[in-house]
Amino acid sequence: MIEQWMHDKLKKDIGEARYNHSIGVMNTSIELAKLYGDSLEEAKLAGFLHDCGKLNDKINLLKTAKEFDIILDNVMLNNIELIHGPLGEQIAIKEYNVTNKNVLNAIRYHTTGRENMSLLEKIVYVADIIEPGRSFEGVDRIRQLAYEDIDKCLLYALDRTIVFVIKKGKLIHLDTIKARNQLIILRGLE
Amino acid sequence: MIEQWMHDKLKKDIGEARYNHSIGVMNTSIELAKLYGDSLEEAKLAGFLHDCGKLNDKINLLKTAKEFDIILDNVMLNNIELIHGPLGEQIAIKEYNVTNKNVLNAIRYHTTGRENMSLLEKIVYVADIIEPGRSFEGVDRIRQLAYEDIDKCLLYALDRTIVFVIKKGKLIHLDTIKARNQLIILRGLE
Repeated sequence: MIEQWMHDKLKKDIGEARYNHSIGVMNTSIELAKLYGDSLEEAKLAGFLHDCGKLNDKINLLKTAKEFDIILDNVMLNNIELIHGPLGEQIAIKEYNVTNKNVLNAIRYHTTGRENMSLLEKIVYVADIIEPGRSFEGVDRIRQLAYEDIDKCLLYALDRTIVFVIKKGKLIHLDTIKARNQLIILRGLE
Repeated sequence: MIEQWMHDKLKKDIGEARYNHSIGVMNTSIELAKLYGDSLEEAKLAGFLHDCGKLNDKINLLKTAKEFDIILDNVMLNNIELIHGPLGEQIAIKEYNVTNKNVLNAIRYHTTGRENMSLLEKIVYVADIIEPGRSFEGVDRIRQLAYEDIDKCLLYALDRTIVFVIKKGKLIHLDTIKARNQLIILRGLE
């Protein structure tokens, strides 16, 4: 399903380090999909392409987003790191010929999260954080949770992200807050 | 402007400890209003009444909110601590005869904050945290900021609240996120 030209294109567009990270996220997404009973094909493709919008050419990010007709909200306009999600969705459609909406949503929301995330969206969000190439303080705890309870892991990761963004003085996307609030309400997680 | 019956009623409704806290918030609000050039009368009344919805009778909080026709959002329904803001606004109107919209908004939004806060709303939000009766780790830093730059202080306090709420596993109100994001965008604060 993932052809050689897609590997070649991704490596060229986002650079070798991010390409290697993408392979890690792909493999971890497949593992989690096996564990939680999701489609392996969808997990593979979404994990592989999740960062396809993280172009090497940062300078033209806003221009590129405009070319792809992406409507950026106020938070994204002021925190351009977040643009690669929606941009990735459009690139996946137009340049990788992806039509599966679940895969596209997993790419789009893998940085912010959102309310009503599908299992695939949760898997890619989490895999992005715990793939084998990641080594930061606390990653072991998140890895452990990922294989125990995907919702608990997601809530933990979302909360960690919010605290991290606050420390950096950056904008917090409302979708991230909605995602964590909903997990607490629906699952009674605390 | 604040008559004796209002003192008596507030003490009876919210208890002596919270009444004393309210006097502290009133005095600090007046100080901040002097410093930043806001109406002293509005600051006095809003500071005095900010917790008038924090009724001793917690059990009937949802019922009381319904009686006052307050439409509770999903976050408030699951974090009833937040109800005393909008409830306080309605009690201020119906039981303390307050008509000044700026004062009412300062009461309503003193726990969550919101986008486009007036100076009075900022003052009461901050005074609630730094009044002389407050003694928690870090309060000195917030007090210092309050007298240096009300917006910086507000952002610092909002961020501190978000981290605190996360640690408690409670819901975060979207208005709190919107308030801090806007301060960062408008003031370039980080």
